[in-house]
Amino acid sequence: MKIGILGGGQLGRMLIQEALKYDDEFYTLDPASDAPCHNISYFTQGNFNDYDTVLEFGKDKDVVTIEIEHVNADALAELENQGVKVVPNSQIIKTIQQKILQKKFYEENNIPSPEFEIMDGSSDEIKMPLPFVQKMNTGGYDGKGVQVIRTNEDMKNLWTQDSVLEKLVDIDKELSVIVARNENGETQTFPVTEMVADPKLNLLDFNVCPVHLTEEIEEQIDSITEKFLAAVNSPGLFAIELFLDKKGKVWVNETAPRLHNSGHQSQEGNANSQFEQMYRVVKNLPLADTDAIIYSGMLNLVGAEGFSGKVIYEGMEEVLKLPETYIHLYGKTETKPGRKMGHINVLADSREELMEKLIQVKAMVRVIA
Amino acid sequence: MKIGILGGGQLGRMLIQEALKYDDEFYTLDPASDAPCHNISYFTQGNFNDYDTVLEFGKDKDVVTIEIEHVNADALAELENQGVKVVPNSQIIKTIQQKILQKKFYEENNIPSPEFEIMDGSSDEIKMPLPFVQKMNTGGYDGKGVQVIRTNEDMKNLWTQDSVLEKLVDIDKELSVIVARNENGETQTFPVTEMVADPKLNLLDFNVCPVHLTEEIEEQIDSITEKFLAAVNSPGLFAIELFLDKKGKVWVNETAPRLHNSGHQSQEGNANSQFEQMYRVVKNLPLADTDAIIYSGMLNLVGAEGFSGKVIYEGMEEVLKLPETYIHLYGKTETKPGRKMGHINVLADSREELMEKLIQVKAMVRVIA
Repeated sequence: MKIGILGGGQLGRMLIQEALKYDDEFYTLDPASDAPCHNISYFTQGNFNDYDTVLEFGKDKDVVTIEIEHVNADALAELENQGVKVVPNSQIIKTIQQKILQKKFYEENNIPSPEFEIMDGSSDEIKMPLPFVQKMNTGGYDGKGVQVIRTNEDMKNLWTQDSVLEKLVDIDKELSVIVARNENGETQTFPVTEMVADPKLNLLDFNVCPVHLTEEIEEQIDSITEKFLAAVNSPGLFAIELFLDKKGKVWVNETAPRLHNSGHQSQEGNANSQFEQMYRVVKNLPLADTDAIIYSGMLNLVGAEGFSGKVIYEGMEEVLKLPETYIHLYGKTETKPGRKMGHINVLADSREELMEKLIQVKAMVRVIA
Repeated sequence: MKIGILGGGQLGRMLIQEALKYDDEFYTLDPASDAPCHNISYFTQGNFNDYDTVLEFGKDKDVVTIEIEHVNADALAELENQGVKVVPNSQIIKTIQQKILQKKFYEENNIPSPEFEIMDGSSDEIKMPLPFVQKMNTGGYDGKGVQVIRTNEDMKNLWTQDSVLEKLVDIDKELSVIVARNENGETQTFPVTEMVADPKLNLLDFNVCPVHLTEEIEEQIDSITEKFLAAVNSPGLFAIELFLDKKGKVWVNETAPRLHNSGHQSQEGNANSQFEQMYRVVKNLPLADTDAIIYSGMLNLVGAEGFSGKVIYEGMEEVLKLPETYIHLYGKTETKPGRKMGHINVLADSREELMEKLIQVKAMVRVIA
């Protein structure tokens, strides 16, 4: 089957890597000539935001999917009209692309997400009390397009673009759950993962699984995933980012209609990975089992501050000596501060051991140039 | 790093698949334009038995390795002279390519292998008593070039080519152990796997791990792997095929200087796979941990008798519904009787459960056209 992917980054690369177990042809579209997928797929250099480019790329494929949501969804809608299967469909991509529509989707489907107000120029008055979070309607990505407004002083910095203003949640834990639905309507959910910050070392990017939650909290999450999967009306793999507040209530922060950083530990930690699951969704195959077979955690390898240029992974040989430790690099030749260059997955028999290992590994490596 | 592989078949494909976790460029050489590696590496169509072709292919690589042993070893020796790293080195490839040299290697290094006699035209008389196994000196592969001579009648069919005549072992179990050694001299051994035949169904191609052996037998195997790794004088990953005879004595049947079918269950069954280990050997990195984390088994998907042409994997959707079951196809478009088209790995909590699952899966699938 000819599978086209909009985007040729690491998510696409790891999807293709997993899917090499099967017999398909992968085609990728990305503006960067050295995108991580360029040498492991039939690669087209081009802009996935451009209507004509996406239409041209997709028209001879059996199915078109995405590994980034900021794509030209109108072109995907036209491809659907022309009979090309698009996973997830253009409608849900459009909904999730726009924070205002995304919030309305939660509201309409009775999915708990923080109280919000739409700022689209239709009213001069902001009713949302301080502090609140401003999320730009479009263009937000990887923390960009989001700011916290805490004081009247901060109000001067309010962006003027169409936005969602959202009540600030008093966060106890940041959780994530990856769900999948195929065209046949079959659904499957990954175990919840937790984004852990280490207070001593200010490490912000550990993602661990499984998470021990009270039955009451698990029920809230189950209810969210069930409502989401019932409402979404599209095949796809989705990452639902959750806040657990200090009163024990679970809120949806936002959803990504694609593979997600918070699911990377599934590569070695679960019976099947999010990449295997995505492949099955794209091909409308029976969904895979997702059991967490052990404690697993992931740390991102991001470009260190002050280094740009040809990447050097300092300390990697030492990491290779550690058992149950798995390095995943993304095939990017150039590093820059904050760029996601890879990740490391670690397995352990307990949460304590896992955290110790993650902290140990984090201290061993540095992405420099 | 530029890594060249002689051969572009499934072993190369799965090596490259695993190594997509790292940042390297893979180049493959294979006579078939649609070889499994052709669309996931920089591919050269050509004959790996041809001196000039191998020399030309290898001269600009940082390291050259093999995924099949029937390659032009003289060209590899010349590449070594020119400063290209070759893993495993040309000398051990030459030794293993020729059954006579291979048997002498075992003899010289006090590694137990069945009693033998060389048939190379230097003597007319065959002293080896019946029954015995005749193995052609060169050209044997996948069971070809090997025959059992049981009777005086069989003697008429004796091949005239240079051969080894080997005492027939009264086999209790067929075992395999994959060992690795890097350039730094570090060594690592995978848990032993067993080739299991199911007497009822005459299923010959299950490979299961771990195997419960007496301490005395494990000591014999440890002694063999230690002697082998000490004697081999080359970095490499090697599959040592063993016979356990009915008296409890372990013999080396033969060795492959490469990735091996008997190690495929390591993909999901071990802490790291043979492919990860091979990658580390090729790059002289610290070797990976190889623990068996659960019971695992593999069955080959081979082309059914009577079917040739564009492959159809009958029953595969049903297999995808099974938990802890992993399909690996090799990207070959055409099937023919007996052709290795893929394999399926299965995990289980006990040997009994594993065997049940393998028999169940085997009955579900058929490779037809």
